[in-house]
Amino acid sequence: MTGIAILGFGTVGSGVYNVIEKNHDHIMANTGLDLKVVRICDIKDIDGEPGKIATKDFEDLLKDPRVEIIVETMGGLHPAREFSEMALDAGKSVVTSNKELVADCGGVFLRKAKELGLNYMFEASVGGGIPVIRSIMNSLVGEDITSAKGILNGTTNYILTKMSEEGVEYKDALTEAQRLGYAEKDPTDDVEGIDACRKIAIIASLIYQKAVDPEDIYTEGISSLTKTDLEYASKLKATIKLLAKFRKTDEGVAMMVCPFVIKRGTPLYGVNGVYNAVTVNGTMMGEIMYYGKGAGMYPTASAVVADVIREAQHFGKDISPGWTADKMKLIDICEEVRFFLVRTGKEDEDLVKELFGDVKIVHLEDRPEEIGFFTPEYKEKDFMELYNRLSCPVKFIRGDIDADS
Amino acid sequence: MTGIAILGFGTVGSGVYNVIEKNHDHIMANTGLDLKVVRICDIKDIDGEPGKIATKDFEDLLKDPRVEIIVETMGGLHPAREFSEMALDAGKSVVTSNKELVADCGGVFLRKAKELGLNYMFEASVGGGIPVIRSIMNSLVGEDITSAKGILNGTTNYILTKMSEEGVEYKDALTEAQRLGYAEKDPTDDVEGIDACRKIAIIASLIYQKAVDPEDIYTEGISSLTKTDLEYASKLKATIKLLAKFRKTDEGVAMMVCPFVIKRGTPLYGVNGVYNAVTVNGTMMGEIMYYGKGAGMYPTASAVVADVIREAQHFGKDISPGWTADKMKLIDICEEVRFFLVRTGKEDEDLVKELFGDVKIVHLEDRPEEIGFFTPEYKEKDFMELYNRLSCPVKFIRGDIDADS
Repeated sequence: MTGIAILGFGTVGSGVYNVIEKNHDHIMANTGLDLKVVRICDIKDIDGEPGKIATKDFEDLLKDPRVEIIVETMGGLHPAREFSEMALDAGKSVVTSNKELVADCGGVFLRKAKELGLNYMFEASVGGGIPVIRSIMNSLVGEDITSAKGILNGTTNYILTKMSEEGVEYKDALTEAQRLGYAEKDPTDDVEGIDACRKIAIIASLIYQKAVDPEDIYTEGISSLTKTDLEYASKLKATIKLLAKFRKTDEGVAMMVCPFVIKRGTPLYGVNGVYNAVTVNGTMMGEIMYYGKGAGMYPTASAVVADVIREAQHFGKDISPGWTADKMKLIDICEEVRFFLVRTGKEDEDLVKELFGDVKIVHLEDRPEEIGFFTPEYKEKDFMELYNRLSCPVKFIRGDIDADS
Repeated sequence: MTGIAILGFGTVGSGVYNVIEKNHDHIMANTGLDLKVVRICDIKDIDGEPGKIATKDFEDLLKDPRVEIIVETMGGLHPAREFSEMALDAGKSVVTSNKELVADCGGVFLRKAKELGLNYMFEASVGGGIPVIRSIMNSLVGEDITSAKGILNGTTNYILTKMSEEGVEYKDALTEAQRLGYAEKDPTDDVEGIDACRKIAIIASLIYQKAVDPEDIYTEGISSLTKTDLEYASKLKATIKLLAKFRKTDEGVAMMVCPFVIKRGTPLYGVNGVYNAVTVNGTMMGEIMYYGKGAGMYPTASAVVADVIREAQHFGKDISPGWTADKMKLIDICEEVRFFLVRTGKEDEDLVKELFGDVKIVHLEDRPEEIGFFTPEYKEKDFMELYNRLSCPVKFIRGDIDADS
């Protein structure tokens, strides 16, 4: 038997309990592992069957010799940080879905676990059910990864999909997302791109094995997007998604999180609702993409259990990835080349042709005073110079260039 | 040093050589492995640096004690089968990209390798650069997989994309694919769905651990599709792709390979050109998708090298997946429920409403004598009854239902 303790019995924690119970025989048949949740720790009372193994004292998990793996699904920085440290010190490997903690001090825990002959695993902290971390560690380890980008936040993707498909405004889409439980009461972390930022920082850290402080990444959310922006995008055979991305250059790594225009016919265009996706580019393999439910009880729990299985199959063997304490060098995003969706006043029509060449200009029926268009590709700083010469610019949104084009 | 021999120095074989040479230091830094190609076997002469370690005698590879892993990239059933057997008997693990061989006797080789304490690995045999097999073995091992479907052949996807985007006929798109090296001179295996069929058989065998004979799978290619079919699909906000799929039921597994209508807004819709994609559904994780270049020198070579790295990291440990000699029970595809794209004569317009209800009917400008529409969802046999009552049916194409809907 492999004894597991769950720390934090909320949505993900109880999902992990259910997956292990429900798929026990299936996992046993496939892997020979007899997984069993032997303790659960939460500050609130727990009903039913799981209540029988519940405790409010975290020390009970540490003292229990049956517990080999502690699943940390409490979220937040404190006391998750202290508890994770205590778990490792007590000789228990830790599997977590806590992206805030992993983004903040994943590197520290990875090194600590290694020193102690344990593992610290966090597949579920990025992209819920999408096995992206596993893939980076295994399948892509021989690849020279040049860039990655992803739709890494299900809440914002749900909101943008709703705005695009149903023509509703941001505020109404957010309210609906909250009603359905896809957005929290205080949605700041999601809608301002902070959550996506943490996740891309984790991915980049794993790939380049250097620490990235999420606070150093240029981050813009979706709260200033309107349904009109999405209508322009649609008219130009495109849509708008919140992307988190990075690209390696000789000078450093360009990283950013912000809304991007994505053209129809590219794989990220079709990633809708609460789905997430990550594309990774390597010099040899070209572009690959992982797609799946980025959040939710069972997709996330499924990723946690996949880590638990892998750890149980490799006790005592160092299978964690790692990143050093060195800081990654980030470069200015203004050096990046891309196209832009521009909205400006109708009186600029001639000026637009003069500044940006023979671009295709579109009009929305209910906005006779305005025009919209995609620019050719520019470095951001060069584009800004042109944009600032428009007489009545409304706004611009960055455009995503497909890796292959 | 980990000594590798390459058997068959064609496109993929030379790609493997180049990836190992080019990424040597990168792989060493990431994994500590010092990979080296020490022998190459091919019946033709090899120029340059690789020529120095070339031989025409396969026995040289077996006798060389430095060779720990033999990469089989010769393709075809014979003598690849005999050589793979000899390699295992000589104590060398085998990594292959040969889907024909794996589909035919992968299970036999897996069991043989296990008995000998070796591994037989074939990530590159399905989907080129997409790490789908690795994922099934690792990340999805705790999941109850209910269905999978994929665009598994780059040649046909290139042809269909070209027909759809440029409005050319099948024959012209095929000629262009041949000119670009995406299709072989005899394209039968690709365009008739045989290649995709082998790949879905491998995936299903791995997931359900039972043998599937590709010949038992209902398989239809794309050679009878016309640009008119794609125009109807486009008019109905959809496209047509060659899908290979299976779905588990209580009675058995329904498997098939044939062209399917795919609606806009679903992830497979955006998989274009030579790209491949596979979606997998599990009871817990929901739907996930892998996307990437399904063929080509470097994507395939990259997948081979990922297997080589994994084997080198786990010598002596059984890391191969496995499937038994038991045959999988396949059920009749006529039991499956789906919608259909139907083309019929204009005079059937009233009859269509009578038979299929209030469906949306579309017309193509250059075909005044015809109408097209999507039916509601039916079991295939029930649909066929209705379809046969049309007075002048032209053709029908199956429609793909999204897993979640």
